[in-house]
Amino acid sequence: MNYSVRLQTLQNESLRSGFDALLINHLPNVRYLCGFTGSSGVLLLAASGSVFFTDGRYKEQAREEVKDAKVVIGHRSALASAAEWLGKRPNRPSSKSLKLGIEGEHLTVAEQRRLVSTLPKNMIVREAPPLTERARMIKDADEISLIRDAVNVGAGLLDYAIESIQLGKTEIEAAARMEFAAREAGADGMSFETIIASGARSALPHGQASNVPIGQGFVVCDFGVILHGYCSDRTRTVYVGSATKDARQIYSAVLEAQLAAIDAVRPGASVGSVDQAARKVLRKSSLAKYFTHSTGHGVGLEIHEAPRVAKGQPEILQPGMVITVEPGVYLPGKWGVRIEDMVVVTEHGCEVLDPTRKEFIVI
Amino acid sequence: MNYSVRLQTLQNESLRSGFDALLINHLPNVRYLCGFTGSSGVLLLAASGSVFFTDGRYKEQAREEVKDAKVVIGHRSALASAAEWLGKRPNRPSSKSLKLGIEGEHLTVAEQRRLVSTLPKNMIVREAPPLTERARMIKDADEISLIRDAVNVGAGLLDYAIESIQLGKTEIEAAARMEFAAREAGADGMSFETIIASGARSALPHGQASNVPIGQGFVVCDFGVILHGYCSDRTRTVYVGSATKDARQIYSAVLEAQLAAIDAVRPGASVGSVDQAARKVLRKSSLAKYFTHSTGHGVGLEIHEAPRVAKGQPEILQPGMVITVEPGVYLPGKWGVRIEDMVVVTEHGCEVLDPTRKEFIVI
Repeated sequence: MNYSVRLQTLQNESLRSGFDALLINHLPNVRYLCGFTGSSGVLLLAASGSVFFTDGRYKEQAREEVKDAKVVIGHRSALASAAEWLGKRPNRPSSKSLKLGIEGEHLTVAEQRRLVSTLPKNMIVREAPPLTERARMIKDADEISLIRDAVNVGAGLLDYAIESIQLGKTEIEAAARMEFAAREAGADGMSFETIIASGARSALPHGQASNVPIGQGFVVCDFGVILHGYCSDRTRTVYVGSATKDARQIYSAVLEAQLAAIDAVRPGASVGSVDQAARKVLRKSSLAKYFTHSTGHGVGLEIHEAPRVAKGQPEILQPGMVITVEPGVYLPGKWGVRIEDMVVVTEHGCEVLDPTRKEFIVI
Repeated sequence: MNYSVRLQTLQNESLRSGFDALLINHLPNVRYLCGFTGSSGVLLLAASGSVFFTDGRYKEQAREEVKDAKVVIGHRSALASAAEWLGKRPNRPSSKSLKLGIEGEHLTVAEQRRLVSTLPKNMIVREAPPLTERARMIKDADEISLIRDAVNVGAGLLDYAIESIQLGKTEIEAAARMEFAAREAGADGMSFETIIASGARSALPHGQASNVPIGQGFVVCDFGVILHGYCSDRTRTVYVGSATKDARQIYSAVLEAQLAAIDAVRPGASVGSVDQAARKVLRKSSLAKYFTHSTGHGVGLEIHEAPRVAKGQPEILQPGMVITVEPGVYLPGKWGVRIEDMVVVTEHGCEVLDPTRKEFIVI
């Protein structure tokens, strides 16, 4: 990862937005900008250079991981150390005030209060735009390679779910088996709580694995891993028992919608048009009203990041963006089907990162 | 759980602190007060009654789980729905302004900005004291019973770590085996990233399991589960290979410090005195300078919650508080030992919740 370029780019963006310095406290943003992977750290970007603050627990780790910013090990929280450091800086020769940008979506009201109380009077604290989040939307080659690795580990897990279903296990046992396999394959962990939703529970878009034995009907399996910090996310829906004609038709409609949405992913298209493409297919079979969530979201260091692939959203797709495409239909109390892949926007269209098949699987 | 009593108690506390209403957005606090277990919800406490806000995804779940508050399903985020609802309330007959308390440690700067922009002019937004966190410090009988269950599931996991070590597995493989067993035992998941730190890595207080094969020396195993929402947390340190006299002495010193700290846990004692009790023992063997973290923390719906059991902290222990007691000593680059139990403060002292032995285990 080229952290010095990332830091310089953000520093330029920050100046262009009218900020003299930026205080980054959202850990995925800190990691993106300087490589620190620990659980406590704050990064200050200023024209005079970048400074990374953490506490004694991370002394060795910070020195190993953070190369392009000065490292300050404090005795208090990372944010308190940063505030103290800013407070002690000699006043600039001019009486000009200094504008410090904070991450309004990530800094709490109490953190801001403590920060402001420590800073010199001529330092003004203001919410900065989400500059790092915007930079993170476009993945570079190193990131895409890591995401590809995470997707490949994730792709191997469905077989364990299928095996568990064949053995008559509960949802939670199937999830546990997948999670064990993920860890064996080197994953740091799962990127979110594994969803194994069977029978009527498949109609819950967020049906985390429960103690229910997996019975007849659709089983929505939505899962992902974190590998080297990057997340994967995928959904496959399988069918247990002898599938009715209805079930096959519903599955086909969702798959057709997903393929149409993938087909709509290309540079220059809006994310709203991708969402629209999926809904258009489902309208044909009168299933659109059961598609109750958005079509997808960005994925990277976080499982949900920009852009949101939702109705009417204007964000324009650009090469290097990695998003999920995951239409689903849910009939409350009855059944649900969702199919999801991660795709990367290329120069002329997109590439589906997930290598696995999407045919209707009956168990 | 008696949510109506919890809500009423907090409402009284809130009035006493000068707030007309409280907006609770920290999910563990929301769960504690009204039982909602989903990932998006906000609770408003007011004299006229409590109102819970969530979005369409949680419609059925909210109605099932939330009994003592009115449930409002919004089309936007839970917080936006709450703000909109507050904005639409008819002005009170008097021109008196209404003081709305927020959770300053949990609401972000941007969330507060959006909230304030939606509220009527006579509604003043101010940070409230951490009233729910303070209430949560004292666990009731239902909570202690759930915590006991979580501790018991956690206690069974060490055997899997030992088995993995005997089979020559890596740290991550041992962690994976424990996590699988936790899931099989019904855990929702682990309460934090499993720490299996062997050899020189045992000197890292937060040495998350890595790809290192487990070799000669101390192995710090620190792990916990979440069961029915409540966390467990425990540490055992075992020794691989033939233990030197030094190793046995260090282990004994840490165990003696831990037992002394447990002995200091009783109603009326300060948490600082518990921390002090552990340090005093370690000073005898000149190991106190290697005890680089605090002695413990509260555990409940969150893995780290109030009180902090640290040097000089004045919080007074009360019956029903559940804390960890976990002194450790670490010689950077060489070895580390930590021993941790969860204890509940009783009427006359404390009870160690963890049933497992703490003798020096050599593998």
